[in-house]
Amino acid sequence: MAAVFRSSLKLRASARLPAVRTITTTPHLRAAEKPYFSNEPAGPKLATAIPGPKNKAATAELDEVFDVRSLNMLADYSKSVGNYIADLDGNVLLDVYAQIASIPVGYNNPHLQKVAASSEMASSLINRPALGNFPSADWSHVLKTGILKAAPKGLDQVFTAMAGSDANETAYKAAFMYYRQLQRGGPEKEFTEEELQSTMVNQSPGSPQLSIMSFKAGFHGRLFGSLSTTRSKPIHKLDIPAFDWPQAPFPSLKYPLEEHARENAEEEQRCLQEAERLIKEWHNPVAAIIVEPIQSEGGDNHASPAFFRGLREITKRNNVLFIVDEVQTGVGATGKFWAHDHWNLETPPDMVTFSKKAQTAGYYFGNPALRPNKPYRQFNTWMGDPSRALIFRGIIEEIERLSLVETTAATGEYLYSGLERLAKQYPEHLQNLRGKGQGTFIAWDTPKRDEFLAKGKGSGINIGGSGQSAVRLRPMLIFQKHHADILLESVEKIIKQL
Amino acid sequence: MAAVFRSSLKLRASARLPAVRTITTTPHLRAAEKPYFSNEPAGPKLATAIPGPKNKAATAELDEVFDVRSLNMLADYSKSVGNYIADLDGNVLLDVYAQIASIPVGYNNPHLQKVAASSEMASSLINRPALGNFPSADWSHVLKTGILKAAPKGLDQVFTAMAGSDANETAYKAAFMYYRQLQRGGPEKEFTEEELQSTMVNQSPGSPQLSIMSFKAGFHGRLFGSLSTTRSKPIHKLDIPAFDWPQAPFPSLKYPLEEHARENAEEEQRCLQEAERLIKEWHNPVAAIIVEPIQSEGGDNHASPAFFRGLREITKRNNVLFIVDEVQTGVGATGKFWAHDHWNLETPPDMVTFSKKAQTAGYYFGNPALRPNKPYRQFNTWMGDPSRALIFRGIIEEIERLSLVETTAATGEYLYSGLERLAKQYPEHLQNLRGKGQGTFIAWDTPKRDEFLAKGKGSGINIGGSGQSAVRLRPMLIFQKHHADILLESVEKIIKQL
Repeated sequence: MAAVFRSSLKLRASARLPAVRTITTTPHLRAAEKPYFSNEPAGPKLATAIPGPKNKAATAELDEVFDVRSLNMLADYSKSVGNYIADLDGNVLLDVYAQIASIPVGYNNPHLQKVAASSEMASSLINRPALGNFPSADWSHVLKTGILKAAPKGLDQVFTAMAGSDANETAYKAAFMYYRQLQRGGPEKEFTEEELQSTMVNQSPGSPQLSIMSFKAGFHGRLFGSLSTTRSKPIHKLDIPAFDWPQAPFPSLKYPLEEHARENAEEEQRCLQEAERLIKEWHNPVAAIIVEPIQSEGGDNHASPAFFRGLREITKRNNVLFIVDEVQTGVGATGKFWAHDHWNLETPPDMVTFSKKAQTAGYYFGNPALRPNKPYRQFNTWMGDPSRALIFRGIIEEIERLSLVETTAATGEYLYSGLERLAKQYPEHLQNLRGKGQGTFIAWDTPKRDEFLAKGKGSGINIGGSGQSAVRLRPMLIFQKHHADILLESVEKIIKQL
Repeated sequence: MAAVFRSSLKLRASARLPAVRTITTTPHLRAAEKPYFSNEPAGPKLATAIPGPKNKAATAELDEVFDVRSLNMLADYSKSVGNYIADLDGNVLLDVYAQIASIPVGYNNPHLQKVAASSEMASSLINRPALGNFPSADWSHVLKTGILKAAPKGLDQVFTAMAGSDANETAYKAAFMYYRQLQRGGPEKEFTEEELQSTMVNQSPGSPQLSIMSFKAGFHGRLFGSLSTTRSKPIHKLDIPAFDWPQAPFPSLKYPLEEHARENAEEEQRCLQEAERLIKEWHNPVAAIIVEPIQSEGGDNHASPAFFRGLREITKRNNVLFIVDEVQTGVGATGKFWAHDHWNLETPPDMVTFSKKAQTAGYYFGNPALRPNKPYRQFNTWMGDPSRALIFRGIIEEIERLSLVETTAATGEYLYSGLERLAKQYPEHLQNLRGKGQGTFIAWDTPKRDEFLAKGKGSGINIGGSGQSAVRLRPMLIFQKHHADILLESVEKIIKQL
């Protein structure tokens, strides 16, 4: 089987760097599955300590002009393939962080290579349209065969944007306009003179003191509106003016779930009650709530489908819009295309935002009244990027061709079982394992989290954290059982070093 | 000379559409200049009333899924070339709006076609890095040979972003962090426990009530922070919560400038005094001011270099940062690469933001203290888009190769003279002509503005407005004197129809 995995990459790297240390597992331990990328390496390869000398030199050069203090590693994308990310020094790591959960179908995916080489792509790059004014004549086709083909059930329209932050903020704007329109008594009602004048000096009633409610530990972006709903860490928010918007508690569940069913249900009930109280009582009326299906930056915090159904009921009951932020959870990683597909909602969310694995961004909606009553109210120069919309279409095609959502569900189960075994073996290092039935969107807490992550690269894996103490797994959708085997062995190896 | 202009496009269009009406001017009236695009049409071509039947059908289809009420026209970019934009019905218009002032070097520019087809481009499209964490190893090179090569004098660092709005907002965030750092007494000072806790609930002191001052009629974007500084039109702001930030008056100059020198100087003085008063007295302390070199969306409002030098002095004197928003004015259109190059500042702006013609976005800065004191304070997943950074590098190369900034200055003079002639001939239709010495960044007021713009397409030109009553010219940098001739004739033709 090793021959199947032997890659030209490995051969080339070995030819240049005789000291390469290939990390392999005993072949009979590996799950047998046909790899999606025939040229993927058999396993991680370490040529130097990380960062190696070339990476250090290149980082110093970049530092002259660009803030590098958040740098994780400089990558050599020309040598990265599938699930493996390469650096300048010949190191090749199994990547279960995938940028920031944002590479869906592998580095140098051949199908995306074709999309990138298409004449449509070239035109979208060099004739960039202002999509609200001068869209390309095929924009409708690109949307219908791409972004909208993946639209969540019940949502058939889209406002395209550039990144998760502005996707959320334009959704907030839609919610505020909708709220005021209801207050005014309908779309045909004109603005008052007082509104027209007061808004120019940022005062009510033209610029009303309304709010968006978010949840403790939630993350929704870093621009001024989205940051006002972000509640992950102080470092994300310090020194930046914020709107006086409410924060509801998010359930703090105990694991394993099956041993704490009653407590957890009570905790969720408490949070729902408090959420509804805030909606009713907050001094700046709540136009919408926004929630992540799994709080991702905030520490991989889960809640049950019943909790989210409860939220949906509360928003319906109180005439507040329900925005689901699928920026990190969307596009397959939880074993459903959209994580909120796990909830069995009776009515769809009012808006669903997306970015990251979609490579483009925006919000889906179904209610035509969420189109503002006049043009140019929800508008900007680019309104997204057709190049990235073409890439998302290619990603959707690849997901369908390879049934990657279903595969991710199955691989996730396999991986989760392996982690359960490790959690029994090393209970002090693998606590609160979570994400069962959520594809590969899995995490656990560990007391020496930062040390754990730092040792990842030396063990051949690129792995990330979330919140204060979680290790979060965010592999790509092409992550397979044999990759899970490598990951499990690396995790065990790291634990033994702690 | 006509042979030089004969394009394959024209031949193809004519072959299919025998009814095509080609708008040409008498050859001897045309300024003789070698065209940059040998395949550009000789002039606009009208095949149908606009919008034609195919455009109407395609618009109805797009309307099902995307808000089309701001639609200007659906374009067929495969048939657009150089300064000419084509639609689905065989109409080809001289484009002096250039999307929203955002196409710099022509539709289907051959050099950009090469950039789009490069392997670097393919990799940046399909292996999209989270630039703050995993930049490509050549990111430093891409920045230094591209975005930073064009950096304004005195500014040698960049924070890359996605669009003008988030470029401005990240600049505001940098300003707030810098302001609080000065208040705290330096970068090494730690946050207090009170700050850490209060910011999580959006309260002061962690989320301080600071402000950014902007100018009446200014436009800086539509996200929540940038919209709080935007003061262009109520429709941009209504129903959206805003920060309580101050608005300074922007000079309202009288034209022709040479006849109103004293009054205009007094008006600028009045505005400067009021700006300084607001900085000293506004209840939410001002961390930075932001200003456009020419207020673009707000109606093409100009001020003198002396006014901007005065602003710079005020900001220095009051320890407030000076942000110049070059999103619309940047990249050559004013006859300098950056419009603020016209000002002869003694010290550079603290930050300069860019987007539109750059196709990518961000802010330049020179002061290393504008890098926050800790990592992850100024951060997001994408932090820009390397694909668009490669396109901007190609644009810069094309600008250099063809000396497009200098050419635009010369073409602008030629065009301005022609408009002066028309203004004398039709004083009621061409008022307050402005932009002399500012390249092709020219505008005028006209009482029947919307009617004027609507008649543009029927006269073969795609032309835009700004503010309440201005016609704004935003041709590309490849706009030449022979294009100016066509434009001048079209303008006269439209005036005669009013």
